[in-house]
Amino acid sequence: MDSTRRNFLQSVSLGAGGVGAGQLLARDNRPAAASGGTGVVDFYGAHQAGIATPAQEYLQFASFDLTGNSLADLRHLLQAWSDAAALMSRGRPVGPLSTGSKPPADTGEGVGLLPSELTVTFGFGPTVFASGGKDPFGLAARRPKPLVNLPPFAGDALDKRLGGGDLGVQVCANDPQVAFHAVHDLIRIARPIAVPRWLLAGFGRTGTSRRQVIPRNLMGFKDGTANIMVENASALKEFVWASEPASPAWMRGGSYLVVRRIQILLGTWDGTGLTSQEQTIGRDKLAGTVLPALPVNAHILLSSPQLNGGQRILRRGYSYLDGIDQATGSPAAGLMFLCYQRDPRRQFIPIQRQLAGSDALNKFVSHIGSAIFACPPGARPGGFVGEGLVQ
Amino acid sequence: MDSTRRNFLQSVSLGAGGVGAGQLLARDNRPAAASGGTGVVDFYGAHQAGIATPAQEYLQFASFDLTGNSLADLRHLLQAWSDAAALMSRGRPVGPLSTGSKPPADTGEGVGLLPSELTVTFGFGPTVFASGGKDPFGLAARRPKPLVNLPPFAGDALDKRLGGGDLGVQVCANDPQVAFHAVHDLIRIARPIAVPRWLLAGFGRTGTSRRQVIPRNLMGFKDGTANIMVENASALKEFVWASEPASPAWMRGGSYLVVRRIQILLGTWDGTGLTSQEQTIGRDKLAGTVLPALPVNAHILLSSPQLNGGQRILRRGYSYLDGIDQATGSPAAGLMFLCYQRDPRRQFIPIQRQLAGSDALNKFVSHIGSAIFACPPGARPGGFVGEGLVQ
Repeated sequence: MDSTRRNFLQSVSLGAGGVGAGQLLARDNRPAAASGGTGVVDFYGAHQAGIATPAQEYLQFASFDLTGNSLADLRHLLQAWSDAAALMSRGRPVGPLSTGSKPPADTGEGVGLLPSELTVTFGFGPTVFASGGKDPFGLAARRPKPLVNLPPFAGDALDKRLGGGDLGVQVCANDPQVAFHAVHDLIRIARPIAVPRWLLAGFGRTGTSRRQVIPRNLMGFKDGTANIMVENASALKEFVWASEPASPAWMRGGSYLVVRRIQILLGTWDGTGLTSQEQTIGRDKLAGTVLPALPVNAHILLSSPQLNGGQRILRRGYSYLDGIDQATGSPAAGLMFLCYQRDPRRQFIPIQRQLAGSDALNKFVSHIGSAIFACPPGARPGGFVGEGLVQ
Repeated sequence: MDSTRRNFLQSVSLGAGGVGAGQLLARDNRPAAASGGTGVVDFYGAHQAGIATPAQEYLQFASFDLTGNSLADLRHLLQAWSDAAALMSRGRPVGPLSTGSKPPADTGEGVGLLPSELTVTFGFGPTVFASGGKDPFGLAARRPKPLVNLPPFAGDALDKRLGGGDLGVQVCANDPQVAFHAVHDLIRIARPIAVPRWLLAGFGRTGTSRRQVIPRNLMGFKDGTANIMVENASALKEFVWASEPASPAWMRGGSYLVVRRIQILLGTWDGTGLTSQEQTIGRDKLAGTVLPALPVNAHILLSSPQLNGGQRILRRGYSYLDGIDQATGSPAAGLMFLCYQRDPRRQFIPIQRQLAGSDALNKFVSHIGSAIFACPPGARPGGFVGEGLVQ
């Protein structure tokens, strides 16, 4: 075993993210149905909610394309979205429900439901700043350098209809109907300034808090053990929150979100021997513990900070299901991989480049959707997310 | 107001399904995050679980096509499915998890999760008995008369890829990962005897129990107020459980399931005035109460027992989301309408024929998927669902 792998194993045995293997096993013996808090997560604050918020149980992710080129329209939309998100985060409708002959100002399916820790997180895609050599909103000079166009990675099988977008909206809540209601009304409010490009629901979140049970992904392995935990303020500062000089002032306290829709070839995976599955991931499947002898191409080794110059990302992924994959006869299911970071050029991109080249997992997964968004800092009451960019 | 509508209003004010409007309002003031019991619903019994079981929070519905024509293969599959469903309903894996170099006999993502009231309900589509003039399994003479091919209805916009199937499997649980795990392993186990034809996840169930909060559907209206409640044994006997002479002996205690994937034209609906929405449904949107003056084409009037010869069905529907409808720019969302009955020829078909002709709701919905299944009675431990047909 070389020294890198030895260091990796030592760091894991000391407790990834501050949690030792013993604790992990103990927590695994506390099975729990998917559930979570029903209270309010404040929409306003220094950072947007939904990043360093313990991951809720359900996701709705929507990507939008802007239909015009008016900065005033974009400003209007961002204000309306923030106002609506703030109301919904407190369990309130986005407008009057009793409107007589006029359409209700809230679609209504959330009436009577608790806030359920709803968060709404907004981001700007690269195309807001430049698209086809044009600068529709006059914002090209304000584009953050970390908001690069993601490069192609070996093995990419991207479908443009499942990726990209001018604006990204991550909605999370502990009640799927609360999450659906929020994205539904945000889509309604956006019209006609922005139209949805893609939309995907998720469940079975990655663990992002020391208080959460580490869940299993659809491959049956625990996912999130070595994640940045939201209680780890120093790691958030070092790896998640944007700051100058790499980022412009309007992004200070924001973060960059990379989205990858990663389909799992479930039929192939399910037909693979347990030993081979464990060697691929690098963990004991049942216990979740790191294998004593890690293959050089094990997923958790290649994605570890030790093999990536110490870099880490805050993963906030969800499992998804999108019907049957007719080509294989297996569920078209996988991981909606969401990760936040201060600079994708130093974090997601080099990590993914290494994985795309060598990861043993590659033959079981396919990256079919990809997007990147600059998520600004939080807003003050009355203000709106993105104000620093468009004012 | 004619006497039919007067009688309808009287019956509603006396309490649909035994619940008065006052109670409904009181229950609406008890908001709750989506959650439910974590315990065991027995797979074995006189009736299959998942019909007269209080509807759980999450659905996975899979339809399968058989690949061969061997009755022995079909029998083998049914036995394996029942054995697996019984184990999973108790929160147990379907086979050994530690298998060394061999693939695990359970995919593993349910390990550590509670049973979450998982139910698995199996049914036979018409094509098992006859397909293209052929009788692949020699079962044509055993086809139940109530298992008709559904006739076309006015306004149908059916996509064959979203409907039909030789075998239907309804999986419900209060944890979405428990439900996914079950359908995932049932798909895996079926190979190569049967391959999935379509698969859809659902949330936001119709109310089917007096103990449940009546939820709102994606149109923002309460759904389930007038449903058959599972506590109502006499209504179950009269309207849900199959019996002779209409059904063959092997279906005694079973039920017929009609599935309709009903897309809601959310953009159109959201742009419709509140008054018009309420006239369309026939209810006050906020309170859920029946309007004092019902239009003749109101949905709840046309679907009521009073206008359908006293016939009722047990609805067990779920909301679904399937991405963006590119034609409208709205969520491709709607209602996975599931209903159980003793004879669709007297229940779903005439009710839907009346609705398809006149329902004010028609301009806001589109039936895009359709299927029908004969769900046999329950099995005894060691036996399997469908034994009476294939033995």
